[in-house]
Amino acid sequence: MDPLQSYVAENRERWLSELCDFLRIPSISTQPEHSGDVRRGADWLCHALKQVGCDRAEVIPSAGHPLVYAEKMSAPGKPTVLFYGHYDVQPPDPLNEWVSAPFEPTVRNGNLYARGSADDKGQVMLQLKAVEALQKTAGKLPVNVKFIFEGEEETGGAAIAQFVPENKELLKADAVVVCDTELFEPGLPTLCIGLRGMVYTEVEVEAASHDLHSGLYGGVAPNPLHTLAWILAELKGRDGKIDIPGLYDRVIPPSATERASWQRLPFDAQKMLHEEIGSPALEGESQLGELERMWARPTLEVHGIVGGYVAPGAKTVIPAKATAKVSLRLVPDQRPQEVFAAFEKRVAELAPKSVRVKVRLIHNADPLLLDTSHPAMATAARVLSEVWTKDTVFVRSGGSIPVVALFHEHLGIPSIMMGFGLPDDNLHAPNEKFNLSNFYRGAETIARFLAAMG
Amino acid sequence: MDPLQSYVAENRERWLSELCDFLRIPSISTQPEHSGDVRRGADWLCHALKQVGCDRAEVIPSAGHPLVYAEKMSAPGKPTVLFYGHYDVQPPDPLNEWVSAPFEPTVRNGNLYARGSADDKGQVMLQLKAVEALQKTAGKLPVNVKFIFEGEEETGGAAIAQFVPENKELLKADAVVVCDTELFEPGLPTLCIGLRGMVYTEVEVEAASHDLHSGLYGGVAPNPLHTLAWILAELKGRDGKIDIPGLYDRVIPPSATERASWQRLPFDAQKMLHEEIGSPALEGESQLGELERMWARPTLEVHGIVGGYVAPGAKTVIPAKATAKVSLRLVPDQRPQEVFAAFEKRVAELAPKSVRVKVRLIHNADPLLLDTSHPAMATAARVLSEVWTKDTVFVRSGGSIPVVALFHEHLGIPSIMMGFGLPDDNLHAPNEKFNLSNFYRGAETIARFLAAMG
Repeated sequence: MDPLQSYVAENRERWLSELCDFLRIPSISTQPEHSGDVRRGADWLCHALKQVGCDRAEVIPSAGHPLVYAEKMSAPGKPTVLFYGHYDVQPPDPLNEWVSAPFEPTVRNGNLYARGSADDKGQVMLQLKAVEALQKTAGKLPVNVKFIFEGEEETGGAAIAQFVPENKELLKADAVVVCDTELFEPGLPTLCIGLRGMVYTEVEVEAASHDLHSGLYGGVAPNPLHTLAWILAELKGRDGKIDIPGLYDRVIPPSATERASWQRLPFDAQKMLHEEIGSPALEGESQLGELERMWARPTLEVHGIVGGYVAPGAKTVIPAKATAKVSLRLVPDQRPQEVFAAFEKRVAELAPKSVRVKVRLIHNADPLLLDTSHPAMATAARVLSEVWTKDTVFVRSGGSIPVVALFHEHLGIPSIMMGFGLPDDNLHAPNEKFNLSNFYRGAETIARFLAAMG
Repeated sequence: MDPLQSYVAENRERWLSELCDFLRIPSISTQPEHSGDVRRGADWLCHALKQVGCDRAEVIPSAGHPLVYAEKMSAPGKPTVLFYGHYDVQPPDPLNEWVSAPFEPTVRNGNLYARGSADDKGQVMLQLKAVEALQKTAGKLPVNVKFIFEGEEETGGAAIAQFVPENKELLKADAVVVCDTELFEPGLPTLCIGLRGMVYTEVEVEAASHDLHSGLYGGVAPNPLHTLAWILAELKGRDGKIDIPGLYDRVIPPSATERASWQRLPFDAQKMLHEEIGSPALEGESQLGELERMWARPTLEVHGIVGGYVAPGAKTVIPAKATAKVSLRLVPDQRPQEVFAAFEKRVAELAPKSVRVKVRLIHNADPLLLDTSHPAMATAARVLSEVWTKDTVFVRSGGSIPVVALFHEHLGIPSIMMGFGLPDDNLHAPNEKFNLSNFYRGAETIARFLAAMG
């Protein structure tokens, strides 16, 4: 073992204990009643950044949840690496499906179970620990480092979207390391080079002026829940095709090279179905491959329908209004504003004249495809291959990390998306976990990447 | 004013005060946390029945909420009239739409606002008060009276469905008076002779084994909320037609006589749309008249969809499962068990192979059409015309009162459905109300009906 590996091995328990402290804070950014907890998360993180040697570390207020900025600029003339992550987490519901409580981190079979363990507090912590380990073993940092962490990733990222364009000088760097993705399979070093964009909406249908008795008015009154069923069914059919005029016009199919590289990935759709999804079969555009559908095709999903009676038992109500939370994932070269406008227009067309329909844009993000020939990307690929002793693979993610598009546009630097989650980490779901050996090896990888950049 | 009218006038304030006491009990039968309140409602009612002179009054336990039975058999050789009503109420949600709190009865503009005021506690009370007033003014009752009240009308009526066939002798009577319907318009005496039946179901769609991140799996994973949209949209189209094979086979169209009588009713579809419903337009089978659609056609309604994320803000989840509460209203001569079987089969056909679907029957009721030539019905029509000084009209209701079918089948007696609610009483909705002059005049009507039966 070299000094870096020894240092990691000697500090495992302390690092785990600190991560658990971080995970105990229920920093749920989407729920107003948790805003105090989100603030506590920011304070905790700011303190941790000072502990690992940052000269400057501060909580930056915003109209919503605060940002946390830190830096250690102790290597004049050397490159600067910016780190990004988020300290907010998804709501934990449904609570009754968790084996251990979401905010009481618990280790089982080498995994740490807690809301936010993989997405993204565990991956934030391994960045801090990489800086700590490199300083302790090399004596000093061979590069300059900056950190920008947000508390609104799960709720649209408004604060950082405003902060980045207004603070280009502060955030100036040669590359940004984003640890919010996953390995393609356990042990396989992975760089993510593409992300889907996002248009998240609420479709509200207003029918009667008040809730109605379905016995008295059933047969003549519009039912907004049924209206939503008609609209949603027509927006996306059983073939997975989204029926919004113009939606696919800007979709760029993956290149022949990229398609060929996907063919070489250790991917088995049946294995994914049985081990990760668990439904009787897959759905979607069956004439296309599964990776293309997840990485390079737009989607339309309904996340929840509000309205009517949802408690146990029966109530024969026709609700006055109902709302569906509907998102679209976008791929290069789709534009969120165009897609939202086309969606809004299509929903209006599909609404019967017996109701009023409103569509609200909740948040959006651009899709992105990165250049694999950038020097920092090449360095990351090489270090990953060395630490994990396998060839690094290039993949895309079907998810959205809006901040990557921000860094690309305003700072002009590539995002090195080397994340250390795993496909079965249950992100946004009950029993979220983070593999502990990935936590430690991830920290080692980042430390060696910083050394190589220096 | 005759003695009866004087008695009613002198006792208005006391009667109102007693009704308010009854309404303050939140006897919500569909919510398990209110079962103690339902029991309190039964006890209160039992006490009130003793107060109006019943010789026997008791709370009868059941597997669910209790029944209340009472009688005063003091007129040997005279007919016996059975009274029916229910002391349970609908849930009050959405609470924020109530002008005054649902369980704090409040008088505004001659109306009493409270959950259960019209449906059905106000109408239960006017039966008791009719018996009180007749005794006080005539010295004694000219008929025998029995009362059977249930606490599960809003949740399927399991207890009374078991009690009636097992207690035919106890409940033996010449007619049953049911006060749980409404006047066709204010001041117009109305007898309801038809009711729709009911099949209330839950359709559960199971997809993945756990909630999924829509970024990672959107495009390949089934979304049970979208599955429900496909199923619901195909079950009932925009033309209001229900697409379940065989569903309409047993539907008997209204007779030419009944259709002609509907033509004479003071009914204005545009007025109903603007004053009672308030949506931009009506829906449904537009080739048929509105009264036929509400009274003599089956309907399919979705009452709530459970699953996914419904709190404020955004969560990009594909839920593992989702459930829709779906009811069908039935008309003569449809059979609930047949309809449920056809519904279940159709839902299974409409489900894609990527999900598992279960259909649960929550409760059901037979549809009914009564014989207008029965002597008790004729007496009721005559008394109504006298008290309200207008010709009595015969209508149907689109709602379901399952117990009427029970009385018909097991006791062999007709239900005289003379209710004193109004079309804008907001049953099952926020701001339910009961018109106070209908309360007092309803009590007078029932008292005169008892006198006429004697």
